[in-house]
Amino acid sequence: MARTLGALLFHDFEVLDLFGPLEMFGNMPGQVQVVTVAERAGPVRSAQGPRVQADHGLPDCPRLDLLLIPGGIGTRTAVENARLTSWLAERAAEVEVMMTVCTGTSLLAQAGLLDGRRATTNKMFFSWPETTWPAVHWVREARWVEDGKFWTSSGVSAGIDMALAVVARLADQQTADFLATATEYEWHRDASWDPFARVHGLV
Amino acid sequence: MARTLGALLFHDFEVLDLFGPLEMFGNMPGQVQVVTVAERAGPVRSAQGPRVQADHGLPDCPRLDLLLIPGGIGTRTAVENARLTSWLAERAAEVEVMMTVCTGTSLLAQAGLLDGRRATTNKMFFSWPETTWPAVHWVREARWVEDGKFWTSSGVSAGIDMALAVVARLADQQTADFLATATEYEWHRDASWDPFARVHGLV
Repeated sequence: MARTLGALLFHDFEVLDLFGPLEMFGNMPGQVQVVTVAERAGPVRSAQGPRVQADHGLPDCPRLDLLLIPGGIGTRTAVENARLTSWLAERAAEVEVMMTVCTGTSLLAQAGLLDGRRATTNKMFFSWPETTWPAVHWVREARWVEDGKFWTSSGVSAGIDMALAVVARLADQQTADFLATATEYEWHRDASWDPFARVHGLV
Repeated sequence: MARTLGALLFHDFEVLDLFGPLEMFGNMPGQVQVVTVAERAGPVRSAQGPRVQADHGLPDCPRLDLLLIPGGIGTRTAVENARLTSWLAERAAEVEVMMTVCTGTSLLAQAGLLDGRRATTNKMFFSWPETTWPAVHWVREARWVEDGKFWTSSGVSAGIDMALAVVARLADQQTADFLATATEYEWHRDASWDPFARVHGLV
């Protein structure tokens, strides 16, 4: 039976954080079905301008197997939304894999889901999570970090590499390789590959 | 004054073809403003599931400086839409840069805009354009190809590399470098870099 992936939308989310991973999961017909969810159903404006339709509001969102949380400048406001972070905490119990890209990690940190866990996030704004949620073991140099069901990734394009690693885990390596080749994507398969930690002065 | 970029939507477009480049152009506030356009205004379903809102229909689309055309399985139907290909031919006269990603190139070929020009497209389905539009000089090995105002790219993720090259041309190298670093993207700056031509048996 197909897994249902919920892709979270909020005002001023970052488009590639969301659609990089969805390019991969959305090309697994019969295996993954993508639904979009936001505080309320309807169009949600991205930080880059285009509006994406939320299929469901938080209360009517179907049961999810996978949950994808993008980052973007909108996370600064979204972390203050207790309805949203409570919903994430509630859904964390049911999902098989919870994924964040970029500053989307802050939403899980705010929900308390990463306390005592290893996680990473955008390398350009690393001091914000490090100082705000000190109970998280922030990993400064990593393309992505896996800890239990929580997969967190570095900035924007890192989400694509993480998504392919999740596909390799849930389906198989062959499926992940096929998706990377079909999308002509040079997949960074090594979670420790992270030249941007140095570029942004973290190591 | 800011340039206006029109991002074309049609049923079953490929999400990363569109949102890879928009990640870059959409993060140039004051320099580029992104609008979405489709045959009719309203939600348009992507091949991966999520629906994106078209701000404008073809008749009420504002004057554009840049036009971005994604690919996806929906191009097979879209090439038969004469209203759409006529609109592209008409808008080609006014824009400064016309960009296609993946099989999106087929729409320009069908509009006759690439006759006698060099162009590239998705490497997995290359025989379709080669046999359908033989008046185009199809380049089998290239990440992207520039010919006059027409920039065409290989499959899916190649659009991101092309977009950064266009940014470097329209703004400057520093802006393109900043966007690549901020999005933690390993930019392939060389238009002749194309391992996928070999993977897909084209060379």
